[in-house]
Amino acid sequence: MGVYERLQEKGITLPEVGKPVAAFVPWVQTGNLIFTSGSIAKRNEQPWTGKLGAEVSLEDGKRAARQIAVDLLAVLQAATGDLRKVRRIVKLLVLVNSDAGFTEQHLVANGASELLAEIFGEEGAHARSAFGVAQIPFGACVEIEMIAEIG
Amino acid sequence: MGVYERLQEKGITLPEVGKPVAAFVPWVQTGNLIFTSGSIAKRNEQPWTGKLGAEVSLEDGKRAARQIAVDLLAVLQAATGDLRKVRRIVKLLVLVNSDAGFTEQHLVANGASELLAEIFGEEGAHARSAFGVAQIPFGACVEIEMIAEIG
Amino acid sequence: MGVYERLQEKGITLPEVGKPVAAFVPWVQTGNLIFTSGSIAKRNEQPWTGKLGAEVSLEDGKRAARQIAVDLLAVLQAATGDLRKVRRIVKLLVLVNSDAGFTEQHLVANGASELLAEIFGEEGAHARSAFGVAQIPFGACVEIEMIAEIG
Repeated sequence: MGVYERLQEKGITLPEVGKPVAAFVPWVQTGNLIFTSGSIAKRNEQPWTGKLGAEVSLEDGKRAARQIAVDLLAVLQAATGDLRKVRRIVKLLVLVNSDAGFTEQHLVANGASELLAEIFGEEGAHARSAFGVAQIPFGACVEIEMIAEIG
Repeated sequence: MGVYERLQEKGITLPEVGKPVAAFVPWVQTGNLIFTSGSIAKRNEQPWTGKLGAEVSLEDGKRAARQIAVDLLAVLQAATGDLRKVRRIVKLLVLVNSDAGFTEQHLVANGASELLAEIFGEEGAHARSAFGVAQIPFGACVEIEMIAEIG
Repeated sequence: MGVYERLQEKGITLPEVGKPVAAFVPWVQTGNLIFTSGSIAKRNEQPWTGKLGAEVSLEDGKRAARQIAVDLLAVLQAATGDLRKVRRIVKLLVLVNSDAGFTEQHLVANGASELLAEIFGEEGAHARSAFGVAQIPFGACVEIEMIAEIG
């Protein structure tokens, strides 16, 4: 079963990739690597705000990370024109808006990592760093950037 | 108009790139990618200190980011010997020393992104992540690292 | 003197690289670059917890960073099968679990940078960013990710 069949099976529709409103772009390709910009958590098309360990529960943080992974798939779709060209998800940097006492950033990040494994299988297994940050633009609860290799 | 003409037009003189004082270097080239070290905000050749949302205003944060972008151009100049070899600014990681309530890291980062667009045009359009960190070496208000592709 | 002789001289034994317990892996190779996952500080095989500027001293933070560098060498050993294939340490991202007033993340990071210089010589000289984060998974005091080039 291919990438698009798995997306369909899970009822996942890739969103439109918005035009960047600033002096940067959603992704850059160099050689066969795609570097994405950091993508922030959204809910109902608005920033999904709050800190883990305070207003946002672990379960919601994980959902937010999963949703960002879908948004990053949409960036890869826009970058490649065909997700089947993705040879490997290389790396995620997962930033979790964290209260000083919250230490489960890795569990939040699993929301994104598991989605990628479900869609890409072994090619979705990536290196990853997750950590707690002091804030994220618009007060979002999670931000993720990705490096992917295309064939 | 070329890169050097645009720098001159804006009255920007690239600074000397200091010798690294520690066990690391200002940049490493691998293949045709240059990875720079994180460069911290400076004013009057001293670290430009303080947190956004507290001692440092948004406008000053943006100025600090712009100044770092100039310093990173100086690193690229030292790395390449000729900025016209820069084919693409690939990515910025923009770290903003942030009070817990400050959520405009993207606007701070625009100070760097806009300078790169002014100097490099379309080749300056980059992927970017910006977020708030708990601190930065020497208490600097902003730190930026860059990936660039050379031809 | 080669890499393995220097490790032996310093009495450094590389640890086993644990199986990843989540939907991600300790490293991914793309082209001749290896991207590692973020590795957290450990002591007695447990997370080495605490914040710099609070419970953890600068000296201990530096020790923790050095220990992580050893763990990252073990990842490179597992990735390459032979550390002599490492052509260059390209970049470190050093995350220091920091109290709001701690501004010596660069000194903590030196613990890792110096170990790499000792083992690899000039090929160990890398680009680097170090900064303070709000938290790290399991409350660890330091987390480091690496990019390395292999020949």
